[in-house]
Amino acid sequence: MASSILLKNVILDGKSRDIMIENGVFKEIAPEIIDSTNCQIIDGKGTLAVSPAFYNTHTHAAMTLLRSYADDMALFKWLQQYIWPVEAKLTPEDIYIGSKLAILEMIRTGTVFFNDMYWYPMETIRAAKEMKVRAAVGMLFLSGSDTKIELQNSDINRQLENNRQAIEADGKIRLTLAPHAIYSVGKDKLLGAADKARRENYYIHIHMAETREEFKNCLKEHHMTPAEYLDSLGVLTEKTILAHSLFLSPSDIELIKARGAHISHMPCSNMKLGSGSFHYHEVVEMHNCPITIGTDGACSNNNLSMLEEMKFAALSAKRQSHNPEVGKDIDIFKAATCNGAKAFGIDGGEIAVGKAADFLLVDLEHPLMMANHNFISNMVYSADSSCIDTVVCGGEILMLHKFIESEKEILQEAKECCCRLQNY
Amino acid sequence: MASSILLKNVILDGKSRDIMIENGVFKEIAPEIIDSTNCQIIDGKGTLAVSPAFYNTHTHAAMTLLRSYADDMALFKWLQQYIWPVEAKLTPEDIYIGSKLAILEMIRTGTVFFNDMYWYPMETIRAAKEMKVRAAVGMLFLSGSDTKIELQNSDINRQLENNRQAIEADGKIRLTLAPHAIYSVGKDKLLGAADKARRENYYIHIHMAETREEFKNCLKEHHMTPAEYLDSLGVLTEKTILAHSLFLSPSDIELIKARGAHISHMPCSNMKLGSGSFHYHEVVEMHNCPITIGTDGACSNNNLSMLEEMKFAALSAKRQSHNPEVGKDIDIFKAATCNGAKAFGIDGGEIAVGKAADFLLVDLEHPLMMANHNFISNMVYSADSSCIDTVVCGGEILMLHKFIESEKEILQEAKECCCRLQNY
Repeated sequence: MASSILLKNVILDGKSRDIMIENGVFKEIAPEIIDSTNCQIIDGKGTLAVSPAFYNTHTHAAMTLLRSYADDMALFKWLQQYIWPVEAKLTPEDIYIGSKLAILEMIRTGTVFFNDMYWYPMETIRAAKEMKVRAAVGMLFLSGSDTKIELQNSDINRQLENNRQAIEADGKIRLTLAPHAIYSVGKDKLLGAADKARRENYYIHIHMAETREEFKNCLKEHHMTPAEYLDSLGVLTEKTILAHSLFLSPSDIELIKARGAHISHMPCSNMKLGSGSFHYHEVVEMHNCPITIGTDGACSNNNLSMLEEMKFAALSAKRQSHNPEVGKDIDIFKAATCNGAKAFGIDGGEIAVGKAADFLLVDLEHPLMMANHNFISNMVYSADSSCIDTVVCGGEILMLHKFIESEKEILQEAKECCCRLQNY
Repeated sequence: MASSILLKNVILDGKSRDIMIENGVFKEIAPEIIDSTNCQIIDGKGTLAVSPAFYNTHTHAAMTLLRSYADDMALFKWLQQYIWPVEAKLTPEDIYIGSKLAILEMIRTGTVFFNDMYWYPMETIRAAKEMKVRAAVGMLFLSGSDTKIELQNSDINRQLENNRQAIEADGKIRLTLAPHAIYSVGKDKLLGAADKARRENYYIHIHMAETREEFKNCLKEHHMTPAEYLDSLGVLTEKTILAHSLFLSPSDIELIKARGAHISHMPCSNMKLGSGSFHYHEVVEMHNCPITIGTDGACSNNNLSMLEEMKFAALSAKRQSHNPEVGKDIDIFKAATCNGAKAFGIDGGEIAVGKAADFLLVDLEHPLMMANHNFISNMVYSADSSCIDTVVCGGEILMLHKFIESEKEILQEAKECCCRLQNY
């Protein structure tokens, strides 16, 4: 359990405040709180601003091991010639090391939660627990010709399910069902996932409408759009995360909104793979359907910085609509913070009494944060990870004044692991 | 004059190297160089990689004072209601402070040269000289109804011209002619600039084809595209920098290439203002016309990070062409480094014997740089300013192991200046 923290002289909405954190939540916010003897004091000295932390709603953490392994090529060549061959050789230990490396980067860039889908999820859970971040980790569902992989996956998922209570006990980790996509998971498995999610109260995490091809093929095969198809199988609920969602009809948007499902928007990955553009203006501003933000994996981004992702989200929204008023900083900031938290039932993403104490201290005396006529604008359009001084998740300190306890060891392990990968 | 520097154990192209720097250039690169007693030694310890520094070919440095002052609005409202009223009140001292703040940010983000266009250029020159960066600073030309501003500008330009020799003596600062744009500067003044540039060996720096409206109006008024119009006036030469260049016909691209003029591509600003998309594939890959990269001012970006700008350039090229193979990391990296240097006749942008010693030391033991299967990919797609450890310009150290000598004073001055601005 997190101990108490007293923030002294931090800047909140332009004013100096003291903030008391107890039992993982904001307990009191006031101009001055008299020091308590039983808490850790962090002094903001009037130059550290308190900000909500980020919630990354779609990634493949361990792929950080493959950052810069292959870039600038068409999806199929990239997967077949580069990614799949090396992925096939990744061991559970590699996934554990890669997940820790990813979480290290997330902490430095201000992220306290990630929604993950990858091989050997128990290793990602182990890494997340050790590093005290929040995570939703998917039990992967895939259909296909490779029966060995299917069986192995089923085994892994069974082990995770059997330990669900222990895994989720600390309140920071949550298991999800992660059918990969409509083109890689059969109808029966999708129906099964929907049924299981409903009965056993799971979130579903799925890639949807990432490419035009997927959209076209779905229309051809099922006479429905991907969103309609998923809805027909009972997959679209308020506990469903739809990664990408680039190809949506107006009625798809209304359907997603009506079901309360959550879109994870990933502008960097969509641009880097040349997949297409998310229709931000239509979805968010015309249909008033809230979105969340994700980074995708470090293989197709190539980093996990939600700061950078916010800027890409805002700027690509303006570019797409030819309108600088579209994709306002405050809306993008909310998508990356409270919307992401809300999607996963975390009562966080805001600095307010009673909310989860997930927050950053941001250095206002940093060249990228000056001038500071508008703090939210600076977070969305200017800041990079060097502006983040301290990161706290559920009242537990992940980074204090730039220091992360296990950083050196993780980097050393990761370095050795990457060398092995190149020789596999 | 810069003293000698010996880099020990730095990583270059994946190998450990010692590098000797003398008289502002790379003198020797070898597996080992025996220590010299007359030089400053910087030890890379096998974890700092040496990289070319960045050359920012279009910005308005002092506008950093207005970062986050007004965002997310249409260009005309933004200018009329927010930017112009506050700009009108900026004093020469404000410009000096704003320029220093901008240069501080440039150094932290790895930039050693900027091409500037703004009010009171002598103040920007003063700042650049003090902070030892390279700069091309424009003498602004504007036509219009405000005779007072025109006269004031002429006075300033005359003063600068009279002191040209002293200003340019150190080899790092260069005066340019900066007619603002074809819609804001009359034909006579553009002809005059072209003539003066030719006779007195000046660079010309101009905004061109930034908006569709400019392109259309030029066709209507002059029966020529903006590029053709500038060429008809003798403005297009190999010493011309064309900022933006979004609206180009195929023959415009060939014309620019034939004249050897330099495009400054600024994806963030173009996206943020909703101006349109640069046709990277057509210009660079189909017509083989090289480009350079700029950040524009911090008011329309909102930072001066060339690292971020490279990622936007690469990803927007892929998005624009729906092709992930377009905008390759190495081409974008060259645009931000050696192409920018070349455009201004600086023999730099590469780590090679005889080249200008403009370089960065980049921390490879940083979460954003690991895995490091491809260093250039990591610089373009993953790195942020926190990865940059040391910055050297012409053999003079601007930042050493994250420390910049005058940083605290500059930030304090800038903070006070921003407070004044809010009360103007």
